[in-house]
Amino acid sequence: MPSKVPDGQRRGWIIPIGGSENKENDRRILERFVSVSGGEDADIVVIPAASRMHETGSRYEQVFRDIGAERVTVMDFDTRRDCHETGRLERLDQASGIFFTGGNQLRLTTLLGGTPVAKLIRHRNAHGVTVGGTSAGASILSEHMIAAGDEGSSLIAGTVRLAPGLGLTNRIIIDQHFRQRDRLGRLLTALAYNPFAVGVGLDEDTAVFISPEEILEVEGSGGVTIVDGSDVSHSSIDKVGDGQPVCMLGLRLHILIAGATFNLNTHLAAAPGLQQSKE
Amino acid sequence: MPSKVPDGQRRGWIIPIGGSENKENDRRILERFVSVSGGEDADIVVIPAASRMHETGSRYEQVFRDIGAERVTVMDFDTRRDCHETGRLERLDQASGIFFTGGNQLRLTTLLGGTPVAKLIRHRNAHGVTVGGTSAGASILSEHMIAAGDEGSSLIAGTVRLAPGLGLTNRIIIDQHFRQRDRLGRLLTALAYNPFAVGVGLDEDTAVFISPEEILEVEGSGGVTIVDGSDVSHSSIDKVGDGQPVCMLGLRLHILIAGATFNLNTHLAAAPGLQQSKE
Repeated sequence: MPSKVPDGQRRGWIIPIGGSENKENDRRILERFVSVSGGEDADIVVIPAASRMHETGSRYEQVFRDIGAERVTVMDFDTRRDCHETGRLERLDQASGIFFTGGNQLRLTTLLGGTPVAKLIRHRNAHGVTVGGTSAGASILSEHMIAAGDEGSSLIAGTVRLAPGLGLTNRIIIDQHFRQRDRLGRLLTALAYNPFAVGVGLDEDTAVFISPEEILEVEGSGGVTIVDGSDVSHSSIDKVGDGQPVCMLGLRLHILIAGATFNLNTHLAAAPGLQQSKE
Repeated sequence: MPSKVPDGQRRGWIIPIGGSENKENDRRILERFVSVSGGEDADIVVIPAASRMHETGSRYEQVFRDIGAERVTVMDFDTRRDCHETGRLERLDQASGIFFTGGNQLRLTTLLGGTPVAKLIRHRNAHGVTVGGTSAGASILSEHMIAAGDEGSSLIAGTVRLAPGLGLTNRIIIDQHFRQRDRLGRLLTALAYNPFAVGVGLDEDTAVFISPEEILEVEGSGGVTIVDGSDVSHSSIDKVGDGQPVCMLGLRLHILIAGATFNLNTHLAAAPGLQQSKE
């Protein structure tokens, strides 16, 4: 379960990005990340631990500085022991925004899972700090994380592997590079196991900004596929073997673009500039 | 609009198949086609006009004979003039089942569209004759036909081209080879233009048997993706240019496997052996 928000306080923004967000001529996603992290006063910690490429952290450091964040620090982790180190914890405790780069989400969870760093990030988000990430860094934000899976648009048993994520929210299951890597099938399969969650499929250069009120708003140039399992009447995934098609009835599907919203409390979707509507 | 069913008569079955149906060890789709065409008394006309491969028609002729149909005739059409020829029309008028092979659906519609053969097939289906087809032969059965489109799972303006089909039903838009050729995106795009129809995405070796009561039942080894646009509250396809993502809210999505049903009148889906349910 996500950390409890203290009385009188607001949860921080949660910002999963679908990967390959524009860092050059139209940086609206990263600009808005800085904006909801304090704007000119933003103090951002970039965690590039998912990536094995040396330049990943410094690239984001430069972009966030260019956008106008007051302070940016790249904080890497090579071992789980690093996640107990006091200096890093103190620096994280100062941040107004925490950003996970892309890479391999299992590298992030195996390094950070259950450590003081993971606990602190959950705690800080519950106290108003913005936490976001792109690609693998988006996947890990939720309680139930897609660790791996097959490409394809169909619901086939055994095509997805779930693992525990960082757990900032347990209402959604996130997938990224969604259109580009054809991942609807594995997202549907994840929901077939337990339809309680809302599936959020993020195209590249596309993000959802989840507000403290748990209203998700799309930003960026692509689409976001919302698969709402809350009215599912039947899933046969308990009865079929791996590789077999699965029967699932009663999903609700919304295709959102920039400015469209989905309310995680009421499950109402709304077009840009329009009233929220369940149907 | 489909031909009117006379008082006291029942419409015939309509059977779109997703392509590559098993013709060897497990022929359950083609066997059931023969069964609803009269079983041992079945009189089947195979129309291979979509295909340019010479052996297509005779292959189906052999399979339908092996299954036990009493009479099977391959009837090809090379020109629109052939579709006015009295001998062919008389033979078609005797058939209890009419089957379109795969190939190119635009070849079928350009040859048959508006000719006496097309009118007769519509008329015969309205008087109880079974009409089915596979792949291109499935696509043409409906009033609005997907003529061509792009691969991919996302709703992108301009990724699909519609054309008028044979028009046995106007309640559905059919797509085939659905999982294998990754066609959800173009089916969603087709619905975005006018959400009145129900999208039916047929995997290979998978069919829907649409009964005279307009209840669709799945047969075969794959899945059928039902996208019900009847509750859509918003589609932005009128406002975006080709290649741009489209916003569409309030779709209902059902993934069906063999034995599951969808009622085209009530829009209720049901799992194999279960009650129908809208949610």
